[in-house]
Amino acid sequence: MILRRLPLLLALALSTPLSVHAIDFSAAELQRATSLQQRLLTLDSHLDTPANFARDGFDIGNRHDHNALSQVDYPRMVEGALDGGFWAIYTGQGDRSATAHLRERDAGLQRLLDIRTMLAANSDRFALALTPADALRIKADGKRVVFISMENASPLVADPSLLGFYHQAGLRMLSTVHFATNEFADSATNPKGPEWNGLSPAGRALVNEAVKRGIVIDQSHASDAVFDQLIAMMPVPFVLSHSSAKAIHDHPRNLDDARLRQLAKAGGVIQVNAYGGYLVDPGKSPARKAAEDALSKRLGGWDRMSIAQGEELQRAEDALDRQYPVRHASLDDFFAHMGHILDVVGPEHVGIGLDWDGGGGLTDLRDVSQLPKITAWLLRRGYDEKQIAGIWGGNLLRVMQQAQDHARP
Amino acid sequence: MILRRLPLLLALALSTPLSVHAIDFSAAELQRATSLQQRLLTLDSHLDTPANFARDGFDIGNRHDHNALSQVDYPRMVEGALDGGFWAIYTGQGDRSATAHLRERDAGLQRLLDIRTMLAANSDRFALALTPADALRIKADGKRVVFISMENASPLVADPSLLGFYHQAGLRMLSTVHFATNEFADSATNPKGPEWNGLSPAGRALVNEAVKRGIVIDQSHASDAVFDQLIAMMPVPFVLSHSSAKAIHDHPRNLDDARLRQLAKAGGVIQVNAYGGYLVDPGKSPARKAAEDALSKRLGGWDRMSIAQGEELQRAEDALDRQYPVRHASLDDFFAHMGHILDVVGPEHVGIGLDWDGGGGLTDLRDVSQLPKITAWLLRRGYDEKQIAGIWGGNLLRVMQQAQDHARP
Repeated sequence: MILRRLPLLLALALSTPLSVHAIDFSAAELQRATSLQQRLLTLDSHLDTPANFARDGFDIGNRHDHNALSQVDYPRMVEGALDGGFWAIYTGQGDRSATAHLRERDAGLQRLLDIRTMLAANSDRFALALTPADALRIKADGKRVVFISMENASPLVADPSLLGFYHQAGLRMLSTVHFATNEFADSATNPKGPEWNGLSPAGRALVNEAVKRGIVIDQSHASDAVFDQLIAMMPVPFVLSHSSAKAIHDHPRNLDDARLRQLAKAGGVIQVNAYGGYLVDPGKSPARKAAEDALSKRLGGWDRMSIAQGEELQRAEDALDRQYPVRHASLDDFFAHMGHILDVVGPEHVGIGLDWDGGGGLTDLRDVSQLPKITAWLLRRGYDEKQIAGIWGGNLLRVMQQAQDHARP
Repeated sequence: MILRRLPLLLALALSTPLSVHAIDFSAAELQRATSLQQRLLTLDSHLDTPANFARDGFDIGNRHDHNALSQVDYPRMVEGALDGGFWAIYTGQGDRSATAHLRERDAGLQRLLDIRTMLAANSDRFALALTPADALRIKADGKRVVFISMENASPLVADPSLLGFYHQAGLRMLSTVHFATNEFADSATNPKGPEWNGLSPAGRALVNEAVKRGIVIDQSHASDAVFDQLIAMMPVPFVLSHSSAKAIHDHPRNLDDARLRQLAKAGGVIQVNAYGGYLVDPGKSPARKAAEDALSKRLGGWDRMSIAQGEELQRAEDALDRQYPVRHASLDDFFAHMGHILDVVGPEHVGIGLDWDGGGGLTDLRDVSQLPKITAWLLRRGYDEKQIAGIWGGNLLRVMQQAQDHARP
């Protein structure tokens, strides 16, 4: 997810670690984890990085450290042994006017163009994947894997038939909704409660059309009622591309144990999220909120910030954290969610979707360069290489293969 | 223009010169012409080359000589001193069903994607131009100029509001129609005669919307009634991106002298075409037509041919020409048109749009590498450098600047 307004971003931003029980791994453990990731196909199911592609000064080939706007680039992917994943066409939810629908349609097409031109400009290091087999071949070619996903189907409200063009251009995963309810589905976090009691008729039609084309359905951000309807209507498994466990932190964006079991029973996968505000309660004070509003006003909109302004934003966030501390999530918090989910559904139904460049990240896992910490933890927990391969992408690609096989005539 | 069916393409294809009066230039003349073009900004207003971008085996950085599908690539642009021009999003006219409209919408977006990814993949040699100033800067940077145009507005029938996205993505010139009448305008070559008596109400709305955005209107392929309506309604000059003189060859795609004068009076520009079938009557026999049909059937559709098949097509065309000769247009024919138009409207209202990779080219001007022959002829005719600069792009960019100035609030 990407937060539409800066204050929200700041509310959940990463900063100086406050946790005193930070988990630690030895150099040998991290080395072993890195080597393992290099052998496996390691995918993250929710990268909001395409929002950076059009930013002034952003180059995916360069390292953008210490920047509140950037957690993923080629050098850090190599360092963290991340092969790629699903790169999102994210569109902020507008006011549902006809004007907003056209603006969102254009924004979606523009983001698709941004992804495809990034690929064309970096064809020596990245390649578009359309199938699980593509991903394996791309890794074997020594390149990074770009599946295209869409977060929030609002670009399809004006004309749902554009889904055909998106599919033709590479779209392989689709979520119906984001922070707020739209014409397709109720959001888990809609301020005004349910409007459709799940999917709208247009939402059901959209899901069916996506299934017909072999596009994986992503339930993250949609309400539990949508989840229940998907369980009932889907002829193939679906995923949650970036969600965590309600049993660990009671937030509408997280899934309860009963639904986790239903998901697994249906063959689906939940990709554990590292978005702080869903892992723990940040406990933000009114004073902090006011300071964030002022900062937001000063720096201008998140959408339009240059990558250089991201460094300024990082410094401002650090200062806010010193002045108005909040509780930031750590790896310990993340492992609490991931461990619980693994215990409930088993390693065949778990994956990783950390919400990089969309608000994700932890005090001790600040960008993709540090991903081997997760693998080191999985090794400590005793999973074998095959199970870890499933968690790092195999489970997700199993669902994708089922979706694509079902769509094949 | 691109011909939708192979038989039509073959009917007008280039092959062995039959003219016995071919114009000749000395090496010194061609050298002087090349140097002049290298100094000036030299643009062609109608390049159908983007149709090749998605072809298997096509690389704009490589030379594709002796290939019926290719007349424009980077090496030949350098050799012929062509800086660039308007690269067309061409879409073949379908049967006007709702299904066809969606297919055309997707085809247009796909072609736009093809152009933008070509640019991203070749950013060391090509750059997108949005304004006349961009074109000059790109040339100064040592790169080739890519303006984006649309030939046939059929991708906008399903949803004309997509024009806003196209403009945002770089579209700067728009023609309403192609070989056959569509929902926007009567075609000059519609088999069933006029349907709208010019522009339809949707066509008028589309033209007005384009004018509001500063997009140059291109009258080529539309009927004379559309021309007359544009003269009456346009608040800014417009162009014909690839058309010739009816006084020299009476064809509906060519403009009569009275309208040429009206165009010039309105400040517009006609970019002279080198599409053989509009310059002369090819005089094709029924036997040739049958042979073309058979070849078409054997090679499959033009749209889907690989660039390697283009070489096979070239050899087959050459063989057809030996067996069933037709009259192919030569530079002499082209200069007859261009000379007449220059005499009628003067060099301030003439430009060059040779329909490369869309059926254009002459027996003795087979690809862009030979363009200095045109400049040598202009020098022989006594035009000065300023006038030749106008013909090679200055006049067209003057119209574009007026369109963009008018649109600026």
